[in-house]
Amino acid sequence: MTPEASLQRLRHLCREMPPVRAMGIGVAGYGDGRLRLAAPLSANVNDKGTAFGGSLVSLMTLAGWGVLTLRLQEAGIEADVFVADSQVRYLAPLYHDLEAEAELAEETAWPSFMEVLRQRGRARIELRARVFLPDGGTAADMGGRYAAIVRR
Amino acid sequence: MTPEASLQRLRHLCREMPPVRAMGIGVAGYGDGRLRLAAPLSANVNDKGTAFGGSLVSLMTLAGWGVLTLRLQEAGIEADVFVADSQVRYLAPLYHDLEAEAELAEETAWPSFMEVLRQRGRARIELRARVFLPDGGTAADMGGRYAAIVRR
Repeated sequence: MTPEASLQRLRHLCREMPPVRAMGIGVAGYGDGRLRLAAPLSANVNDKGTAFGGSLVSLMTLAGWGVLTLRLQEAGIEADVFVADSQVRYLAPLYHDLEAEAELAEETAWPSFMEVLRQRGRARIELRARVFLPDGGTAADMGGRYAAIVRR
Repeated sequence: MTPEASLQRLRHLCREMPPVRAMGIGVAGYGDGRLRLAAPLSANVNDKGTAFGGSLVSLMTLAGWGVLTLRLQEAGIEADVFVADSQVRYLAPLYHDLEAEAELAEETAWPSFMEVLRQRGRARIELRARVFLPDGGTAADMGGRYAAIVRR
């Protein structure tokens, strides 16, 4: 699948999932192994006028899921991707629209992940994501393990 | 504030927050230091027909926030509550409506938390939450630290 076709499919999936649609999440960019998702503050605001913690972690969790899904499609592998666990830190309140970016925690882990996936049909890999502050700082970050299972 | 008034306020807050309203989250019960929140699968479903990981963690994060907010109100303290960090495990797919319960990780931590809060105006405490499977098992669980800051 071409990168553009993969991205179109991801955009379609985002529109299809009710909680993702409700948060107004859209794909802001993809390149160099990084996926960036965005969502308006208005749909994700809490009682204090800042971004709801649940929305921050949802956006990061989805960005991690999305970047792994895209990379697998580029590698020609049809697999289901699941988040297995995550550690989240909420570092600063965010008074602006949400933007999250996700990538592999370590790019060097990719070849062995792919080898295990091809041999056993399932494998796990560590991703990391963060939500930006307007000045480029970090509102929240996440590390998480994701599992991929090849579709038979 | 009476427990019933606190609960009414929590219900009002849930309706006021756009992402919480979009997920259809409601208060299912409160007692013995445990808060239970519920949300319909239809508003929280992913592309695989199961509960979206972001919705699971949102529900647990909010349940933790809610139970600490309620307990502080019962103790006569007006404080803002923030989630500081969390560790989430996604254990099993959930094909049913979501129900999460949150409580203190250790009930014995409450007196010292209250003492620090009264002395310094801010304190942190560890909470835990889980989302149930229909058979009473666990779909996902979370441990998280929350900060309370007394309103001046």
